[in-house]
Amino acid sequence: MSELYSARRTRLRDRCAAAGSAAALISRPANVRYLAGCAPPGAALLLGPDDDLLLTEGPLSGDPSEGRPAEELRVSELPTRDGDPVVAAADQAARAGAGSLAVEEHHLTVARHRALAQVAPRLRLADLARAVEAQRVVKDDEEISCLRIAAEITDQALGELLESILVGRTERHLALELERRLVDHGADGPAFATSVAAGPHSGRPGHLPTDRRVEEGDFLTVNLGANYRGYRCEIGRTFVIGTTPADWQIELYDLVFAAQRAGRETLAPGVECREVDRAARQVLVGAGHGERLGPGTGHGVGLEIDEDPRLSPAAMGKLDACVPVTVDPGIHIPGRGGVRIDDTLVVRPEADGGPELLTITTKELLAL
Amino acid sequence: MSELYSARRTRLRDRCAAAGSAAALISRPANVRYLAGCAPPGAALLLGPDDDLLLTEGPLSGDPSEGRPAEELRVSELPTRDGDPVVAAADQAARAGAGSLAVEEHHLTVARHRALAQVAPRLRLADLARAVEAQRVVKDDEEISCLRIAAEITDQALGELLESILVGRTERHLALELERRLVDHGADGPAFATSVAAGPHSGRPGHLPTDRRVEEGDFLTVNLGANYRGYRCEIGRTFVIGTTPADWQIELYDLVFAAQRAGRETLAPGVECREVDRAARQVLVGAGHGERLGPGTGHGVGLEIDEDPRLSPAAMGKLDACVPVTVDPGIHIPGRGGVRIDDTLVVRPEADGGPELLTITTKELLAL
Repeated sequence: MSELYSARRTRLRDRCAAAGSAAALISRPANVRYLAGCAPPGAALLLGPDDDLLLTEGPLSGDPSEGRPAEELRVSELPTRDGDPVVAAADQAARAGAGSLAVEEHHLTVARHRALAQVAPRLRLADLARAVEAQRVVKDDEEISCLRIAAEITDQALGELLESILVGRTERHLALELERRLVDHGADGPAFATSVAAGPHSGRPGHLPTDRRVEEGDFLTVNLGANYRGYRCEIGRTFVIGTTPADWQIELYDLVFAAQRAGRETLAPGVECREVDRAARQVLVGAGHGERLGPGTGHGVGLEIDEDPRLSPAAMGKLDACVPVTVDPGIHIPGRGGVRIDDTLVVRPEADGGPELLTITTKELLAL
Repeated sequence: MSELYSARRTRLRDRCAAAGSAAALISRPANVRYLAGCAPPGAALLLGPDDDLLLTEGPLSGDPSEGRPAEELRVSELPTRDGDPVVAAADQAARAGAGSLAVEEHHLTVARHRALAQVAPRLRLADLARAVEAQRVVKDDEEISCLRIAAEITDQALGELLESILVGRTERHLALELERRLVDHGADGPAFATSVAAGPHSGRPGHLPTDRRVEEGDFLTVNLGANYRGYRCEIGRTFVIGTTPADWQIELYDLVFAAQRAGRETLAPGVECREVDRAARQVLVGAGHGERLGPGTGHGVGLEIDEDPRLSPAAMGKLDACVPVTVDPGIHIPGRGGVRIDDTLVVRPEADGGPELLTITTKELLAL
C-alpha cells in the first residue's frame, strides 16, 4: 500500500522534472491525500528535491476517517499556529537547493503565494496546474475497490429507507436518516450533502432539503452517497409516493430513464466525453425539454465527489478504462416536480462486459 | 433590513476610497453574505465604481438557508459554467472606468487573480486584506438576535439529549442525534461538525466522533452549535456517565470550570484579547497542566464559527462592546480523557451587567 503512494509521487515528480521543476508543492487536500495517504487541514506536501516531506499544522489527529500518512513518507508536524506549512515547505525546498518549485496556482491564495515568494526569493515559482487531478482520473484496483464498497453502503442505506414509511416525513428528516444509515453501514460519512426533494421540489438539481412533508402522489427524488476511506460515489433515484403513478409521471420517468440509459450505453474506452452528454441530452431535447437541462450529464468521482472528467457539451478529452463516472440526467418542471436518475459506473472495455455499474439499486419506477 | 446591507457596503466603499481604490471585489463567502444578504457558491460582489452588483454562477437557488439578496442590490446571474463571476466583476469594474480594484488576496487563488488581471490589464489591483472581517467583528442588534436564537436552539438540542439514555450509544450516533435535534428546533443546520467524545477521547480538541460506545464512569464531552440565518454559536459541556464522579474527575472539572470562569470574568470593553487567554491559562498552568493547553482560549463567532477576534497569547487588539466570543478552555490527558467547557458570550459594558451569556445550559458537573 505504501508503495502505491510512493509510486504516485515518483510519477508526479518525474513529470515535474520533465517540465523543468526539481520540486513541487501540493496543497489541495484531495491531491495531498492521493499522494500522501492523508490530508490534515492546512497540510503541504513537498516533493523533492530531496526526500518527499509532509508538513502539517500541528499534530496529526489520528482520526481514521482522515486517513494516515504513507509509511515511508517523512512527516514534519509544525507547532500549531506557528506559520503556514506551505511557506515552511518552500523554505525547505530552497534550503535543499531547488532552483524552481511548481505550486498549485488554482489552489494557493495570492497572499500565501506572496508569503512563499518572500521566504524563498531565489526560488523560481512555476504552475503545477492540474497535474495531480489529471493523474487521479484513472483509478487503480484499490481505489475502485473503495468505490465499490462506498456504492454498496449507499445502496444499503437507500434500500432500508425505502422499506420505511415516507408519507408525512420532512425532506430534512429523511436526509438526516439517510446520512445516519450511511454511517451505520460503515461510511466515514456522507460523500456530499444528501438531497431529498418531494413534490414540486423533485428533480431540482442541488436542492437542499426543507421542512416540506412527503405527500401521496408526490414524486420523490433522492441523491446521496457514501464516503469510504475518502472515496465518494453517488446515486440518484426517483420514486412515486402512493399506489399509482399519474400518466404524466410515467411519461416523464420513462424519458429520463431512456436518456440515462443512452448515456450509460455510450461509456467505453476511447469515447469522447462530450459524446456521453450528447447521447443523454438528445433524448431529452428530442422530447422538447431542451431548455430544462443542466450544464452536463455527469462527472468523474474519486477522492472528490465532482472531479475530472466532465461529461458535458464543451468537454475535451476521451474516456479511459478504469475511470469512474456518474451518468446523471434529469428534468425539473418548476412548480410541478421532476425526475433524476443517477448512477456511478466504471468505464470498462466492451470485451470485459462494458461499463461496471456500482450503484445497483433498481431503476424501475417504484410506487412507495 | 435592506438599509442594513446597504449601510455596510457604503461603509466599506468609503474605507476603500480613503485607501485609494474606487472599487472593491468581495469573494469570501462569509464576507459576501455580510454585505449582500446571501452568498451563492462562487459569487462575487462588486462595490463601485457605479451601483453595487452581485454576480452569481447560475441562477439563485432560492433555498432559505442560503439567505436572499438585499432588496436594493442589483444581481447578475451568469450562465452556469460560463466563466468566473470574479473575472466578470473585474471586467465590469474596468468598463465602468475604475482605475483600481481592491481584491481579497487572502481568498482569491493565484489562477483567478491572473485571469482577473488578464481581462482588465489597465486595472490596478490592490489588496483589500481583512477589511470586511474587521468590519464584521462588532455585531449589530439584528446579528446578536440571530446569535441568541442560535444559542437557544443549541441549548434545547443539548438539553433533550441529556434526558435520554446515553450508555451504550456510540459517539457518532449521539452526534447525528444532536444535529437532527438542532434542525428540529429551527436551525438551518449545525454550525460545525458536532463533536462527541467519550472516555479516553473526552476533552480532546477537534475530536471527530467514532464508534466507541459510552460507558459507565466515562467523562463525556460534547461540542455543538446551531447555524441560524447564517449566524453560528457554540457550546461545550462535560458530563460524567453513571452515579458518582471519581475524585480525579471532580478535581479536573473544578479546575477547568475555574479557568473558564476566570476567562469569562475578564470580558469587558477595552480589555486586551490576550488578557482573556492569560486569565484562563494561568489557572491551568498554575495546576501543572501548562503543556496540555491549546493555542488559545476562544475566538469570535458570527457568520463564521471561528472569526476575529482571537483570544490567544499572541493576539493584538482589544475587545469592544457587542463583540460575541467563545471562552473555551480544556484539558485532555491522553489515554485518560478530560474536560472542556465552552460558552458563547457577548461583550457588554460592566454598567450594563457585564458579558451577556448566550449558552445557558448549566455548567454544574452532571452525572448522567
